[in-house]
Amino acid sequence: MTSSFQRARRPEHKEQRRQDILDAAATLGRRDGVRAVTLTDLAGEAGVHKSAVLRYFESREAVFLLLTADAWQDWAAAVEEHLAESAGPQRVAAVLAETLASRPLFCDLLAHAQLNLERGVSEQEVRAFKVTTLAAVDRIADTLTSAMPSVSRSQAIDVIAGVTAMAASLWQTANPPETLARIYAQDPAFAHSPTEFAPRLERLVALLLIGTAVTAEGEGADRDE
Amino acid sequence: MTSSFQRARRPEHKEQRRQDILDAAATLGRRDGVRAVTLTDLAGEAGVHKSAVLRYFESREAVFLLLTADAWQDWAAAVEEHLAESAGPQRVAAVLAETLASRPLFCDLLAHAQLNLERGVSEQEVRAFKVTTLAAVDRIADTLTSAMPSVSRSQAIDVIAGVTAMAASLWQTANPPETLARIYAQDPAFAHSPTEFAPRLERLVALLLIGTAVTAEGEGADRDE
Repeated sequence: MTSSFQRARRPEHKEQRRQDILDAAATLGRRDGVRAVTLTDLAGEAGVHKSAVLRYFESREAVFLLLTADAWQDWAAAVEEHLAESAGPQRVAAVLAETLASRPLFCDLLAHAQLNLERGVSEQEVRAFKVTTLAAVDRIADTLTSAMPSVSRSQAIDVIAGVTAMAASLWQTANPPETLARIYAQDPAFAHSPTEFAPRLERLVALLLIGTAVTAEGEGADRDE
Repeated sequence: MTSSFQRARRPEHKEQRRQDILDAAATLGRRDGVRAVTLTDLAGEAGVHKSAVLRYFESREAVFLLLTADAWQDWAAAVEEHLAESAGPQRVAAVLAETLASRPLFCDLLAHAQLNLERGVSEQEVRAFKVTTLAAVDRIADTLTSAMPSVSRSQAIDVIAGVTAMAASLWQTANPPETLARIYAQDPAFAHSPTEFAPRLERLVALLLIGTAVTAEGEGADRDE
């Protein structure tokens, strides 16, 4: 959605313009994949000139890194909401996998943030991104250790790193470039190429969480002896 | 190492030139990170003109994608060598994690292959890459199912996807861009930021393999009833 005023001068208009640009990035990222969206696309979708985008954000990468930070907070809130009580590893895995699978833009952003976006912004922007992201990781770690009390904080943080790494990679595998998609579709040699996303993520996250529960309980038993 | 002849005309010289360029890419990728290496860097290190590189490879991405395919085969051979007999999940995890951690260029390439390299080459190149990679995955799946007979082939393939996803992501986290490295070093708020690679990978791979073993044995028991 684009704002109805021509040039933002008042603070609330500026904030609206900024939000329009972030919304445009989210819309185009979801539709075309983060990789494909240029600064010119963003400006077009938000209904502003390219130079206007650069008055609000230092670069295309800064826009998408802000979206990634927002998406981390949104994911943390969703995990917290769905894991309010203690739960077994299968249930925890299902919540983590489903909340990720229902956030395809976040999964796409996870890969780009680490490999491309973090490297394309100033120290100030990357610092702000890390502050927000680590706060979200802390919040999810709190939720995990409350739901599975035998799991330590450092195990929970490892699990979050593992789960997001798998979501990022499986999402890219399931959304291949056009050349690969054509090969997968046409060539029987690739018929078994794994392009499913949500079920595969859920299976892998379950294996990781079951391993975590078994290990944490073993360590708890050692401590109790 | 660069060849001693000025221009490659004989087939064995051409093959040598091609190998010089791949070796140059590996040397620079290890030293500077894959992201930083340009076609001009490659040519300089191999002692040839940029146009000569493009006589042998369609692009910088094609060179690195070939290195990735080689690295997959090399990793498959290493896993096979170290997992010749049946082994428990901890031992399998240690072999997978250690053979990856001792191949930093492969870990760096894993992230770039999926997000950048596969998308920067022709259909022919990406097809050749997938054929080699899937053969390596098959070989590792054979090794895993031999070492842990209760694990099914599709579980083994999931595990390989999960393990390589975690290695790719943790490697990038442990090798941050300069801006982030400076922040991590200077700012106490980031003192706990996880930048260790090998121990963290080994912990996570162990959790995944323990979960896989428990799940596979459970399914085996169900089948036996």
